Amino acid sequence: MAEPNSVGIVTAQTAHFDQPLTLMSGAVLPAYDLTYETYGRLNADKSNAILICHALSGHHHVAGRHRLDDKSPGWWDNMIGPGKPIDTNRFFVVGVNNLGGCHGSTGPSTINPDTGKPYGSRFPLVLVADWVNAQARLADYLGIQQWAAVVGGSLGGMQALRWSISFPERIRHSIVIASAPKLTAQNIAFNDVARQAILTDPDFHGGDFYEHHTVPKRGLRLARMLGHITYLSDDGMGEKFGRMLRSGEYKYGFDVEFEIESYLRFQGDRFSGTFDANTYLIMTKALDYFDPARHYEHSLSKALEQAKARFLVVSFTSDWRFSPARSKEIVKALLDAKKHVSYAEIESAHGHDAFLMDDKPYHDLMRAYMTNIAKECAA
Amino acid sequence: MAEPNSVGIVTAQTAHFDQPLTLMSGAVLPAYDLTYETYGRLNADKSNAILICHALSGHHHVAGRHRLDDKSPGWWDNMIGPGKPIDTNRFFVVGVNNLGGCHGSTGPSTINPDTGKPYGSRFPLVLVADWVNAQARLADYLGIQQWAAVVGGSLGGMQALRWSISFPERIRHSIVIASAPKLTAQNIAFNDVARQAILTDPDFHGGDFYEHHTVPKRGLRLARMLGHITYLSDDGMGEKFGRMLRSGEYKYGFDVEFEIESYLRFQGDRFSGTFDANTYLIMTKALDYFDPARHYEHSLSKALEQAKARFLVVSFTSDWRFSPARSKEIVKALLDAKKHVSYAEIESAHGHDAFLMDDKPYHDLMRAYMTNIAKECAA
Repeated sequence: MAEPNSVGIVTAQTAHFDQPLTLMSGAVLPAYDLTYETYGRLNADKSNAILICHALSGHHHVAGRHRLDDKSPGWWDNMIGPGKPIDTNRFFVVGVNNLGGCHGSTGPSTINPDTGKPYGSRFPLVLVADWVNAQARLADYLGIQQWAAVVGGSLGGMQALRWSISFPERIRHSIVIASAPKLTAQNIAFNDVARQAILTDPDFHGGDFYEHHTVPKRGLRLARMLGHITYLSDDGMGEKFGRMLRSGEYKYGFDVEFEIESYLRFQGDRFSGTFDANTYLIMTKALDYFDPARHYEHSLSKALEQAKARFLVVSFTSDWRFSPARSKEIVKALLDAKKHVSYAEIESAHGHDAFLMDDKPYHDLMRAYMTNIAKECAA
Repeated sequence: MAEPNSVGIVTAQTAHFDQPLTLMSGAVLPAYDLTYETYGRLNADKSNAILICHALSGHHHVAGRHRLDDKSPGWWDNMIGPGKPIDTNRFFVVGVNNLGGCHGSTGPSTINPDTGKPYGSRFPLVLVADWVNAQARLADYLGIQQWAAVVGGSLGGMQALRWSISFPERIRHSIVIASAPKLTAQNIAFNDVARQAILTDPDFHGGDFYEHHTVPKRGLRLARMLGHITYLSDDGMGEKFGRMLRSGEYKYGFDVEFEIESYLRFQGDRFSGTFDANTYLIMTKALDYFDPARHYEHSLSKALEQAKARFLVVSFTSDWRFSPARSKEIVKALLDAKKHVSYAEIESAHGHDAFLMDDKPYHDLMRAYMTNIAKECAA
């Protein structure tokens, strides 16, 4: 039975790129693959394409299911589909797994053609600007000269922002959700603890654990547990878990006692069994390094001067990882640079994770904004 | 050369207790030692004694130095000494290392007389109420029938609060600083990640690492790094470290790049070389379990009905580990129970660590409050 408003069964595709890509670090990727999915149809003048950029643990599988019996749909299935806020009846939507990822695109677990072994520790660090460059090549490949919009939450929002600076002519709308113009010391600190958990796991083997037939699960599990704390709000966690005990009584031991412990350990266990530890490191470094103002005398408004897109910036009241104040820094810089920007601060108890939820005011806003973009495409 | 306002060179003492102590868990400690220090002189009617309760990583060495060439004085030396807010010219001050600690009092690294080996995994979990019971025996031992005040920050504040419930006749003032009536789900979550880091360290050996001649340094280091993030405020960390790079340039690797990484790793390294991992686990569990309202129909005001002490509750604006809102819960419960309470919310950028700092408004407040207590003693 077909799900209503679903894009249905989808299949990932892979594009191969032979032209070397010089990264911001100076390293060069001689060739690489990008795995992507598309939903909806590209219109005749190719003006209705939307790029979805993923966050730390995301990928190209944004909507629909790969098989009928898939347990879960793509990670943003509540946002994208026929009749949904990003309406696939109107838009041609592209999801892509970023370079360094572990879901099909070239990354640390990919076989390095030079050695016949996984890249592992040899895979270079990639920055948000590198991802955007690679995404631009994918756009070329798909025949898309200009995106109607580039959309992303969190680290994905940073890509949407970067697009407006790197390729001002190729993006009409930049939709930056639950994001920040750069990380704070506290943000970096959390990332560093997560990285140290992985790097010091004896099973990590300097990043070449594939050859040792080990997986640094302990470290990755801790990293994910910690991450989850920062994705939820204190209040939201309190409402959902509070001080609830699994058995109703103190057990005076180190096994799971509180429900919140059970939740975190479950999330950590599941993630550490499926995600690549090197990819996790790369993603957190891309977050730390993101700072588009850095080469513009540390002025974000200067960095944004060349942008031609219109912007929608969205934040959530209970998000303490990237609080509304961080979004307002972006809005302020855009206003200083005399750009066209809409801003909404959405009331939500879901913390940073709110960008993945379907709180009605949030989806209503997205629907309204996307409807206006659709009108431009038709005009 | 003597330091001004210092208690000078101090020596720790140890009291041995042969009477078995039944813990809240039902476990029994047949005998135990408590290591303590005292500063100042007990007056004739023994009415000027102050108990200082330590937090997670603290101990009995609160003020002064053990040797002239000690690098650092006791952990609360800025608060305690002749002429300082807790004035040793007026008060007899007692610092004690809690049961389960690793600074002299009986704990997991102590030799278990039954086995001739360190207790390790056999050491029972101890609760805040257990510490208070043990501290009461130390008071008996020192001939102190009633404390002029019990004072503590963070986990130490929980002990000060518990004293007023467990021994209403034996405490005249309870001074509860940067504390909370119980942990939130988020607080427990951070503790659980820290514990999991230790428990899953291959060098932990189920708590019996002493026999394996290993130390779970990796886990303890991560736990401490994470802890430090929660002790500092986002803004304070931003002011001190921001996005400062050690070398001024991105290095595109996993070695230390940002100053905040350097700070955290240094703190983690130092701590993991000196602190006992089992003690860390015990202390975090005592935090999780603390919930004096639990046996009073989850009403803190009911729990406090029997209290006879006067209370001073202090919080700090930028403390997000135990925010002012948590202190206000205590104040509200005390008011509901018609107790005498003073409350101060101190403006500070130091986060949770502010209780250890010497911000002037904080020390002025403490000095004023302690001066009034001193007048009672003299009267």
